[in-house]
Amino acid sequence: MTLAIDLNCDMGESFGAWKMGHDDEILPYVTSANIACSYHAGDPAVMRQTVAAAIKHGVALGAHPGLPDLVGFGRRNMDISPEHAYDIVVVQIGALAAVAASQGGRLHHVKAHGALYNMAAKNARLASAIAQAVHDVDASLVLYGLAGSELIRAGNAVGLKVGHEVFADRTYQHDGSLTPRQQAHAMIEDPQQSIQQVLRMVMDGKVATQQGEDIAVQADTLCLHGDQPGAVIFAQAIRKALQEKNISVRSVGN
Amino acid sequence: MTLAIDLNCDMGESFGAWKMGHDDEILPYVTSANIACSYHAGDPAVMRQTVAAAIKHGVALGAHPGLPDLVGFGRRNMDISPEHAYDIVVVQIGALAAVAASQGGRLHHVKAHGALYNMAAKNARLASAIAQAVHDVDASLVLYGLAGSELIRAGNAVGLKVGHEVFADRTYQHDGSLTPRQQAHAMIEDPQQSIQQVLRMVMDGKVATQQGEDIAVQADTLCLHGDQPGAVIFAQAIRKALQEKNISVRSVGN
Amino acid sequence: MTLAIDLNCDMGESFGAWKMGHDDEILPYVTSANIACSYHAGDPAVMRQTVAAAIKHGVALGAHPGLPDLVGFGRRNMDISPEHAYDIVVVQIGALAAVAASQGGRLHHVKAHGALYNMAAKNARLASAIAQAVHDVDASLVLYGLAGSELIRAGNAVGLKVGHEVFADRTYQHDGSLTPRQQAHAMIEDPQQSIQQVLRMVMDGKVATQQGEDIAVQADTLCLHGDQPGAVIFAQAIRKALQEKNISVRSVGN
Amino acid sequence: MTLAIDLNCDMGESFGAWKMGHDDEILPYVTSANIACSYHAGDPAVMRQTVAAAIKHGVALGAHPGLPDLVGFGRRNMDISPEHAYDIVVVQIGALAAVAASQGGRLHHVKAHGALYNMAAKNARLASAIAQAVHDVDASLVLYGLAGSELIRAGNAVGLKVGHEVFADRTYQHDGSLTPRQQAHAMIEDPQQSIQQVLRMVMDGKVATQQGEDIAVQADTLCLHGDQPGAVIFAQAIRKALQEKNISVRSVGN
Repeated sequence: MTLAIDLNCDMGESFGAWKMGHDDEILPYVTSANIACSYHAGDPAVMRQTVAAAIKHGVALGAHPGLPDLVGFGRRNMDISPEHAYDIVVVQIGALAAVAASQGGRLHHVKAHGALYNMAAKNARLASAIAQAVHDVDASLVLYGLAGSELIRAGNAVGLKVGHEVFADRTYQHDGSLTPRQQAHAMIEDPQQSIQQVLRMVMDGKVATQQGEDIAVQADTLCLHGDQPGAVIFAQAIRKALQEKNISVRSVGN
Repeated sequence: MTLAIDLNCDMGESFGAWKMGHDDEILPYVTSANIACSYHAGDPAVMRQTVAAAIKHGVALGAHPGLPDLVGFGRRNMDISPEHAYDIVVVQIGALAAVAASQGGRLHHVKAHGALYNMAAKNARLASAIAQAVHDVDASLVLYGLAGSELIRAGNAVGLKVGHEVFADRTYQHDGSLTPRQQAHAMIEDPQQSIQQVLRMVMDGKVATQQGEDIAVQADTLCLHGDQPGAVIFAQAIRKALQEKNISVRSVGN
Repeated sequence: MTLAIDLNCDMGESFGAWKMGHDDEILPYVTSANIACSYHAGDPAVMRQTVAAAIKHGVALGAHPGLPDLVGFGRRNMDISPEHAYDIVVVQIGALAAVAASQGGRLHHVKAHGALYNMAAKNARLASAIAQAVHDVDASLVLYGLAGSELIRAGNAVGLKVGHEVFADRTYQHDGSLTPRQQAHAMIEDPQQSIQQVLRMVMDGKVATQQGEDIAVQADTLCLHGDQPGAVIFAQAIRKALQEKNISVRSVGN
Repeated sequence: MTLAIDLNCDMGESFGAWKMGHDDEILPYVTSANIACSYHAGDPAVMRQTVAAAIKHGVALGAHPGLPDLVGFGRRNMDISPEHAYDIVVVQIGALAAVAASQGGRLHHVKAHGALYNMAAKNARLASAIAQAVHDVDASLVLYGLAGSELIRAGNAVGLKVGHEVFADRTYQHDGSLTPRQQAHAMIEDPQQSIQQVLRMVMDGKVATQQGEDIAVQADTLCLHGDQPGAVIFAQAIRKALQEKNISVRSVGN
C-alpha cells in the first residue's frame, strides 16, 4: 500500500473589507481547504471566492465551522451546550455546501476551528454533538480532528470517515495532545525538525513527546498554516520531502 | 383540472431568548413554511425547532432569506449589489437545507423576506441574482415571489418552478403591485372581503385594483400572517371557504 | 441611622422587533434600573426608551454591561481576557451614559450582567478589570455586585462606591455564593420566605445558608426579576414589608 | 487673522484579528483623528489603542459613527429612519467618549462615516437627527461634515460648532457636492494639483468645479486617507505647502 497524507490549510478568513491570509499562494500546495463559514471569519462573498479558487486548484472543499465570535476569531472558549454545538455546525456546513454547489463543487470534509476544535478534542459530549451534526447533514463527509482525540472517536462512533490530523510545528504530550502554546518548547521552529516529525509520523506512525517517550499517532492529514511567513516555502519543502519518500499527497479518503 | 392554492406563512422568527410568532398554532393550517435563516430573524436552534415542527405537520419547508439586518428585522432597504444578494441567498438557503436534512426533511422552496422581497419584486438585477442563487444551489427548488413581479420573471428566466404569491389583506395597484402600507386603503380589514378577494384570484384569475379596473393575477400561494391577532381564525375561515369552492390546498408544485 | 435598601431590576432587554420584560409595570416599584447596553440585549432605541422611562419614574440609571453574545443572552461563560472585560465594560458604560445625557439624565451605577456578573464574582482578575473600567470612565459611578464577592472587593480596591447585592429568591452557600440553579433548593419559591430572608439581611446583616449556619451579609441592593410572573405583586409585597419595618427604599449612595 | 486648517484622518478601522490602515504612520501628520466606533469598523480594543495613540500624538479625538454594517464597512446606503440615525450616533459617540475618558482624554469632534456621511450631506432630516444627537450628548462637540452640506446646516441650526470638510483628491460639482466616484474625473491623481486645490480653498475660499466655474467653499478641515499608498508622503507634502503659505495646521475650534 502506498503511504499517503493530506495537506490541509485554513482559508477564506478574510471578512468584508478586511483581508487575511494568502490563499492563492498556498492553494497550489495543499489538497484540502478548510473554509471559514462566517461565524469566526469569512463572509458570503469570501466563501464563494475561496470555494471557486479551491475548485480551480482541484483542492478538496471543507467546511471550517467555528464559534459565533467574530471579534475573538473563534479562539476563545465559550461554554456552549452540545445542542448549540450541533446547531451551529449544521448551519455552517450547510452554508458552505450551498456555496460549493453554486460553484459546481461538492463539500468533502469538515474541520472545526479554533476553540471549537480544541474543546471538541477533549470534551466527549461536544465531540459527539459535532460528529452527529456532520453525520446528520451528510454522512459521506469526512470529519477531520486532532489525531486520537475525542472528536475522532466520536466520528468513528457515528460511522463517519475520519481524518486524524497532525502538526509539523507543534510538539506533543504523552497523551497525544499538543503542548499548549504558552508552554516552553510548544513550537518547533526548525523546518527540518518539523519535516522529520512529519515523515516519522507518516512512515512509522510514531511521534516523540515532550516527556521523552514515543507514542503512536495516525497521520492522515497535516495542518499547514497559510497565514504564517514562510508558509509557501515550508509547503514546498514538505512536499519535496514527502515525494522523496514516495509518500502520496492527496485528500483524505481519495 | 382541480383548482388549488398553497397557504404559506413566515415562521421561525424567534431569536435567542426572544420569542416571536405562534408557529405551533398556525402550522396545522398552512402548506408551506417560510423559515427565517438567521440574517433578519431566527437562530440555528430556532431553525431546527421550526423545521422539526413543520416536518411533523407535513408542511413544505422553505428558506426565507433576508437582509443582514437583525435590529431592523430585514425590513429596511439596503443598497446591496446583485452579487451580494446572490451570496447571502446562497448561504441562507444552504443553512436551512442542512437543517432540513439533519431533521430528515428536504427543502422545497425559497421566499425572500421583507425588504429583500420588496426590492426583488421591482429591481430586475436583484431579482436575477436571487433567482440565479436559488438555481445554482438546487434547481429543483420552487421560487416564491410577488405574483407577476420581476422576481417571478427572473425565476422563469433561469428555469425555476415559481410560485406567484398573492395577499388576502392587501389591496392592489393597477400595475399588480401592492398598495404601499402608508397609503390609505392599503389594508383590507374585513375578513369576508379578504376571502372574496382570494377566491376571485384563484377562480377567475382577477383582482380589483385601487384604480377601479380589474387586472389579471396568478394565485399560486397565499401569504398568511401568523403573528397577527386572529391569524388562526382567519386561516380556518379561508380554508373553509376554499373547501366550499372545491379548491385544493397544497404546496406549490405538489 | 435609618435602615435602607435599594431595589434594582434589569431592564431594556427588548431587541429590535423582539419584546421582553414588563419594564413599565415594574418601574414604579424599583429605585435602580440596570439597562442592557446592546451586547447581550437591548439596542440603541430600546436603550433610549428605557432610559426615558426610568427618568420619568425617578429611578436611578445603571449600565448593565454583558458579554458579546446576543444569541446566548450573555448567559454563557466565555474565556475572555481581563483586558477584553475592561474594554467591553468601558464602551457599554459609555453608550448608556450618552443615552442618559441625551435624555437629560445621568448615569448612576453599573451592574454586570449574566455570565459576566457571575465570572466577576469569583475571578479576581476579571473583577479588577471591570472595577478599573468603571473607575476610569467615571469614578463617581457606583459598582453593584454580588454581596461579598470579588467584584465588590475590586470596587473597593479602586476606590469606587459599591453596592452589595442580595437576592430574595435564591438560597446561599456558606461562602456567600448563591446556590447554583441546577442544584436542589437553589430557589426560594415561597414569597413570605423570600421576604423574611430580605428583612433579616437588612436588619440583622445575616442570612441562613444551605449548610445550616448563618453568615454575615451586607444588603445594599435587592435584585428583583421583572420578567417573572408575579414580579409586580412581589415588588409590592416586599415594599410593604420594608415599610412596616421602617426600612427606606432608595438607590445606593442616595 | 492667521489662516488655518485641520488635517483629519479616519482611524481605528482594524477589527478583531483583522488589521487595516497605518494609523501610527499617519498620526504624526494630522490634527484630528476620526475613530471608528465598532458599527462599521473598530472594536473596543482597537478603539482604546487608537485613542491612546492619538492622545500620545496630541491629535484631537473624534468619534466616527457609521451604519450598523460591518460586512459592508458602512458604505452601503440603508433606509434608516432619522430616529435610528439619532440613536446609533448617540451610542457610538458615548462609546468613544468613554474610551477617551478611560485613557485620560476628551472627545473633541464627531464625523459621520461612509454612507451615513453621504446620506447626511443631502438628506435634511437625517442631518438634523445626527446634529441633534451630537448636541444632546455633548453640546461642546464639533460636528465635521461636507463643506456646505445639509449636515453643516443642521449643525449650525442646533448651535453646534461645525467643521466644513474639504477634499484634496476629489473634484467638485457646481452645487458643492463631490463628483461621484463612478464618474470620470472624480479623482485628482496628481498630488500637486491636489495641493493647489487645497491652498486655493483655504486662501481664496474657492474651488473649481467640473462645470467650469468656481464656487465658494469653506475649508475648515481636510480629509486625508490614511489607508492609501503614499498617504504619508502626501501628508508631508501638504503640510510643507501649508507651512510655506503660513497656514496653521490645527484642529477645528482650537
